[in-house]
Amino acid sequence: MNGSRINADGRRRRLVVVGGDAAGMSAASQARRLAPELEIVVLDLGPHISYAACGIPLLLDGTVVDPAVLTVYSPASARAERDLDVRTGHRVQTLDVRARKVGGVVVDTGEPFELDFDRLVLATGARPVRPPLPGVDLPGVFVVRRLQHGLDLRAELDARQPRRAVVAGAGFVGIDLAQALRARGLAVTLVKDRATPLLGLEPEVGAVAEEALVRNGCLLLRGAPLYGIDAGPDGHVSGVRAGGERLDADLVVLALGVRPCADLADQAGLRLGPKGAIDVSPCCQTSESAVYAAGDCATQVHRVTGRSAFITQALAANRQGRVAGANVALDLGGAAGQRQPRPEHPGALGTAVLKVFDAEVGRTGLTLAAAREEGYDAVVTVITDRTQPRYYPVGGPMKVALIAERRTGRLLGAQVAGHPGAAKRIDTLATALHAGLDLAALADLDLAYAPAFSPIRDPILVAARAALKRI
Amino acid sequence: MNGSRINADGRRRRLVVVGGDAAGMSAASQARRLAPELEIVVLDLGPHISYAACGIPLLLDGTVVDPAVLTVYSPASARAERDLDVRTGHRVQTLDVRARKVGGVVVDTGEPFELDFDRLVLATGARPVRPPLPGVDLPGVFVVRRLQHGLDLRAELDARQPRRAVVAGAGFVGIDLAQALRARGLAVTLVKDRATPLLGLEPEVGAVAEEALVRNGCLLLRGAPLYGIDAGPDGHVSGVRAGGERLDADLVVLALGVRPCADLADQAGLRLGPKGAIDVSPCCQTSESAVYAAGDCATQVHRVTGRSAFITQALAANRQGRVAGANVALDLGGAAGQRQPRPEHPGALGTAVLKVFDAEVGRTGLTLAAAREEGYDAVVTVITDRTQPRYYPVGGPMKVALIAERRTGRLLGAQVAGHPGAAKRIDTLATALHAGLDLAALADLDLAYAPAFSPIRDPILVAARAALKRI
Repeated sequence: MNGSRINADGRRRRLVVVGGDAAGMSAASQARRLAPELEIVVLDLGPHISYAACGIPLLLDGTVVDPAVLTVYSPASARAERDLDVRTGHRVQTLDVRARKVGGVVVDTGEPFELDFDRLVLATGARPVRPPLPGVDLPGVFVVRRLQHGLDLRAELDARQPRRAVVAGAGFVGIDLAQALRARGLAVTLVKDRATPLLGLEPEVGAVAEEALVRNGCLLLRGAPLYGIDAGPDGHVSGVRAGGERLDADLVVLALGVRPCADLADQAGLRLGPKGAIDVSPCCQTSESAVYAAGDCATQVHRVTGRSAFITQALAANRQGRVAGANVALDLGGAAGQRQPRPEHPGALGTAVLKVFDAEVGRTGLTLAAAREEGYDAVVTVITDRTQPRYYPVGGPMKVALIAERRTGRLLGAQVAGHPGAAKRIDTLATALHAGLDLAALADLDLAYAPAFSPIRDPILVAARAALKRI
Repeated sequence: MNGSRINADGRRRRLVVVGGDAAGMSAASQARRLAPELEIVVLDLGPHISYAACGIPLLLDGTVVDPAVLTVYSPASARAERDLDVRTGHRVQTLDVRARKVGGVVVDTGEPFELDFDRLVLATGARPVRPPLPGVDLPGVFVVRRLQHGLDLRAELDARQPRRAVVAGAGFVGIDLAQALRARGLAVTLVKDRATPLLGLEPEVGAVAEEALVRNGCLLLRGAPLYGIDAGPDGHVSGVRAGGERLDADLVVLALGVRPCADLADQAGLRLGPKGAIDVSPCCQTSESAVYAAGDCATQVHRVTGRSAFITQALAANRQGRVAGANVALDLGGAAGQRQPRPEHPGALGTAVLKVFDAEVGRTGLTLAAAREEGYDAVVTVITDRTQPRYYPVGGPMKVALIAERRTGRLLGAQVAGHPGAAKRIDTLATALHAGLDLAALADLDLAYAPAFSPIRDPILVAARAALKRI
């Protein structure tokens, strides 16, 4: 048994992980837990590993001052606590699957490096879309994805005290950043290329987010694709052109979505999936058996459709990382080597929630449009109810949208929006989706009631009953 | 078809409902909806029908002034909007199943009445336990179950301005009332007969409620059965004897649980079930085919055990009422007469939530003790986590307890407690219980994450993973 943990040349078996954020560090930690003898090297391009990217807006609005608060591991603590050889500032440029080698350069010194591996985990994440527009590289134009991005933007806010920001893109990230900038006192205009409802939600549900934005002083310009970014006399950004408008701005944030960082995998000939993400099995194995991939660079199984999808979320990234790490430990004969069957990622529903100033939104599963694209005969039902009963002093309106298959009544997706207390109700619907419940079962749930928390029939139950009449 | 809706003597077929609260009015409304030609008479002992009993504490603390706010129907609106012949102040004393007659007296006049029925729905509710102790009927001693009870207690608070209250019983009702009395400025001592944790929760979970009570100025005397209630020189209550203590009190509230009001059913020979509740089928039919029962007077199927249980909750009462009303409509040839199969009540989980000052608790399914009594090889896991991540400015600690079957990992029950945001998470666990998920599935749920709402792994996921290690 012990022999299998040593290579023919006598050195310890080695896992190399490319990328030290959620998925990568989860993979490394899990492999370490299950295979204590393994050598584990984590290579990351940037200076920071293992941070809560969703906390970056809190760095901007001043809620969090020390970025260390947002990190789970530093390179030093990862080494001390987990015996992980974390090497930051390493740009990986080459992957030779046959020879089981990665190579690249050390960013600071330009020095090349090369590293053998027995197993590789690619956890390279996703990169923000930067469209090839005039002015996209001007000073004052930012993307926010990695912790360093957040620190750079914060430094700009502190140093230049910008007054007018344009946020291009009104997705979860764009809206989150718009709030942080409003909290800093900036005038904020969100620019959205299409005229569709916010966040891919049903129109009535998306309107809740939109009203909250406008009520709290953000402008929203819809149907206005970004054409270009202009510089002022000082060479710094001075405005954007979007749709037919020219908007003044001394700060521009691009929040136009992300694409998987899959170049390395692509060059090495690994199979890619939807949106160019690295195609992986439920075990997170790529088309090459010695290479795993996890997190935002990889595909996931959508639990509703059962098909591969590109879903970028922290929880799913962590989980895929754990699965990849556990499978590596099995491959390399760690302590859990006997365990069967191999750990698999359960797939994801794309559950997401967002605070929008004094409102909340949440979604899970398929949207109506996505359900129809997937070939379901889908119907949507939207109801308005309240988070708490009208006579209770706390509470307000909330909406629930249920997307269901017409013939079977199977739940395909759901959305909630409204007053505080609305958003986390999406978990009930995510659980129902996970379990494959139909609308009749949903309407029968024994959900909690007390005036401080809910009307006697939770809005989810009201929605389920309304939806039953429509299928 | 039409002929079946008329009796041999030419009069319309008649449904009589005894009890005009949640279950009774739901039954009457549903029967009306499905069988417009039916004559429907609702008899209620008291003056009020169809009220939100859980809102009574809000009448006491001043949040709600007009009790009409807590009622869905008045007798007049029930007649006008639903064509329901609601007769308040009617005490039903006799039930002759064979002759299909109920009889009794009109409370105000003492006049007897008798009424034929084609179908009867018993929705007589439950009554608060009033143990046969010395002084239990003294002025200043209250129970709170019906709306009139709440109005009587409020009148006492307004008129006598009591200073020291003893609440006997520390269940959901006792704790809810204790808060209302504290809000009115009274000194409140809760007296609990046994030394067991609050609300039947796991000790660590119940402690959250207990700490909140004490932090907010309520005293809690445990292991102190009530022995008697004393009068002062004016004949009004002056204190209680509980355990070895004598406590001063100018107001005593008995919150010692409830028993089903099943005397009428018992006298008529209907079969009774657990705790003496009227035994009903999933269709809410009693042992006599012409008689249905619904709500707190009737048994319910516990969804975890599949067995009959006595569960008193507003949502379940409403649902049983609807089921009974729908089945009556089928029996008497209403418009939905063709619909098959017969509507059934899905059973209940006993899901309940309670605000305890600045804390929250929730439970669903079986407690550990109940699970073991039912013969399950059950194990409990309790974890402490946070409602939101530590770096987020809102949030605090919360606990999750999972009760699971050892061999199979099947979830049997769950409890949550902690900072605001904790309680409604019980809905996720109630949904998992409803769907029969095991711990592995629970740990795989795609629950919502954003710093404003949850740590990256919701505490439920953390608990599921911890529990998996213990089964």
